[in-house]
Amino acid sequence: MEIKSFSVPDRILMGPGPSNVHPRVLAAMAKPTIGHLDPAFIDLMDQIKLQLRYTFQTKNEVTFPVSGPGSVGMETCLVNLIEPGNKVAVCVNGVFGGRMREIISRCGGIPVVIDIPWGSAVDPQKFEDAFKENPGIKLSAFVHAETSTGARSDIKTLTEISHKYNCLAVADTVTSLGGIPVKTDEWDIDAVYSGSQKCLSCPPGLSPVSFNQRALDAIKNRKTKVQSWFMDIDLITSYWGSGSKRSYHHTAPINALYGLNEALLLLAEEGLENSWARHKENSDILIDGLKKLGLSTFVKDEDRLPELITVLVPDGIDEAKVRNKLLNDFNIEIGAGLGALAGKIWRIGLMGYTSNRGNINLCLEALSNALK
Amino acid sequence: MEIKSFSVPDRILMGPGPSNVHPRVLAAMAKPTIGHLDPAFIDLMDQIKLQLRYTFQTKNEVTFPVSGPGSVGMETCLVNLIEPGNKVAVCVNGVFGGRMREIISRCGGIPVVIDIPWGSAVDPQKFEDAFKENPGIKLSAFVHAETSTGARSDIKTLTEISHKYNCLAVADTVTSLGGIPVKTDEWDIDAVYSGSQKCLSCPPGLSPVSFNQRALDAIKNRKTKVQSWFMDIDLITSYWGSGSKRSYHHTAPINALYGLNEALLLLAEEGLENSWARHKENSDILIDGLKKLGLSTFVKDEDRLPELITVLVPDGIDEAKVRNKLLNDFNIEIGAGLGALAGKIWRIGLMGYTSNRGNINLCLEALSNALK
Repeated sequence: MEIKSFSVPDRILMGPGPSNVHPRVLAAMAKPTIGHLDPAFIDLMDQIKLQLRYTFQTKNEVTFPVSGPGSVGMETCLVNLIEPGNKVAVCVNGVFGGRMREIISRCGGIPVVIDIPWGSAVDPQKFEDAFKENPGIKLSAFVHAETSTGARSDIKTLTEISHKYNCLAVADTVTSLGGIPVKTDEWDIDAVYSGSQKCLSCPPGLSPVSFNQRALDAIKNRKTKVQSWFMDIDLITSYWGSGSKRSYHHTAPINALYGLNEALLLLAEEGLENSWARHKENSDILIDGLKKLGLSTFVKDEDRLPELITVLVPDGIDEAKVRNKLLNDFNIEIGAGLGALAGKIWRIGLMGYTSNRGNINLCLEALSNALK
Repeated sequence: MEIKSFSVPDRILMGPGPSNVHPRVLAAMAKPTIGHLDPAFIDLMDQIKLQLRYTFQTKNEVTFPVSGPGSVGMETCLVNLIEPGNKVAVCVNGVFGGRMREIISRCGGIPVVIDIPWGSAVDPQKFEDAFKENPGIKLSAFVHAETSTGARSDIKTLTEISHKYNCLAVADTVTSLGGIPVKTDEWDIDAVYSGSQKCLSCPPGLSPVSFNQRALDAIKNRKTKVQSWFMDIDLITSYWGSGSKRSYHHTAPINALYGLNEALLLLAEEGLENSWARHKENSDILIDGLKKLGLSTFVKDEDRLPELITVLVPDGIDEAKVRNKLLNDFNIEIGAGLGALAGKIWRIGLMGYTSNRGNINLCLEALSNALK
């Protein structure tokens, strides 16, 4: 194997993430690295926190990007809010709900699993039944936008039900943030996490999170130490705290944060509402085109995400061959099905900077060509 | 607060990390993001693994960068090799040994602490005494280059002693890798981790690790699941495994890995031995200059790291004022003392791309000016 500088192919990223990254974000990431205790960097941290509050629609003081990919955001939320022996209601309607269940177990929690068919939204009635049948649930966990299926759940209602039973709620907004409304304060979600590489159109590697006061109080009242040192929210918030109260925890990924700041700025310039509208509009156009090609979507209309469209592979079609043709002949990446959906669906992402008419047209042309 | 694109000051990074990043590495990070399952990205992963084996001087198959800063590498090594109730010998001669002790406890391990005065190397005799006094130690943990003090320990000897007592050894090489010899295979270290932002001269955010077969066997024979899903070495190695055996775990930080690949290539072009020699030579020049300014180093000659020189703050000098003058008038960042050493020392880094004559000259001039 010859070792050399990496020559990057020019891809259109229409898979389940990462999405294409705006040139301004790429340029920001190439700025010279500075120290993570530099006063200029501390200003940048403050600016990122402000911008994330807008993105999450929250006033939560504790709103910052975890220094790791979305999975670390997920584990950070769960590991801080679960103590050994806690009952945790977890909705599993795809891969990421399953991942939450696995992490809950590893935190010593007792998962109360609400199993939902893959491709459907979480059924609020089934969710509430779990509380009736299992008294003493401390925490609930669910995914807003299931990246493995393309289904959207009503996390406002799921949070309301959780609170009715005196239970805190954690929501996964990895694939929803920036693409569809995420109203952390209005919906009163206690802890929420996301990822940089979906509708925020940053490279992967950062996981924005936000905790409200109820969640922070629960963490403060823990009887046991958080099992992860790196993910301990008390320690991290000392680092991401304000001004002179900051104290060293780990070394933040400086250049990745340059990129996130710029991506959040781009989103603020467009405006969240406009971004949501763009994602919806482009999704409608794509689906229209898919129908004209004789393709059907996997998720029913009312549950379907605009930023991630799952498409049924027609009978007799070798799905991998189609994906390879798109990649090799058109430089378009689309995603395969995961787990039980492998071979059965494609996942077409229209997230963030990727979501534009030119990409949709090319993707439809490529699919038409590949399906011939 | 006005939200805007981040305007980066032009700093010379002579603190304890990050170090200055080579323009080729910055340029690599600005290349377009591609998918983490793209065949081209899989080739890049293979290339990075190959390069890291050279950097760590190992043939270990399981050698890859953890998708998080050095602290995640530390926690990854410990969380996989410790089961609740295990006795773990941990050498504490600075902040990072102390961090290891804290993580060991959070993993359910029982730390057997070898306390060493800050600024000294770990005393092998004291280390061996701990084994004699505490039968049944399963794992030992120590820091090669203590970033908080500037002292180097003899991790070859510490590993030999560990093996004599049938105990695995984990070494922190965050500040040593690339700057002084780290010979993973020759020294037979079982698990080793580092950071991207020191002598590798990458931005922070990645933690290269390597596990030998003895460590992997111990992990395979665990009776309990690893408490962290994200850091579970079995799951991560499926992702970083070779060719068709790869399976999805998390989404790797694509652009950060472009940067690491380029940084490792720069190091290979220079050659490890030449890099070690450069770090030593430049350190000697700096120390000579410091002496001429009437300054003394904190660590005695035989234990002193060439890439991170700790300097005693002279009596009557306001150390923060000196650092601020260097930063504001010369754009030079040097580090303060941590913990018990706050106010007593400065930490001057000559790591990776930072380690050159021009920076040394300017730093000495700036210090001379600030101490007047």
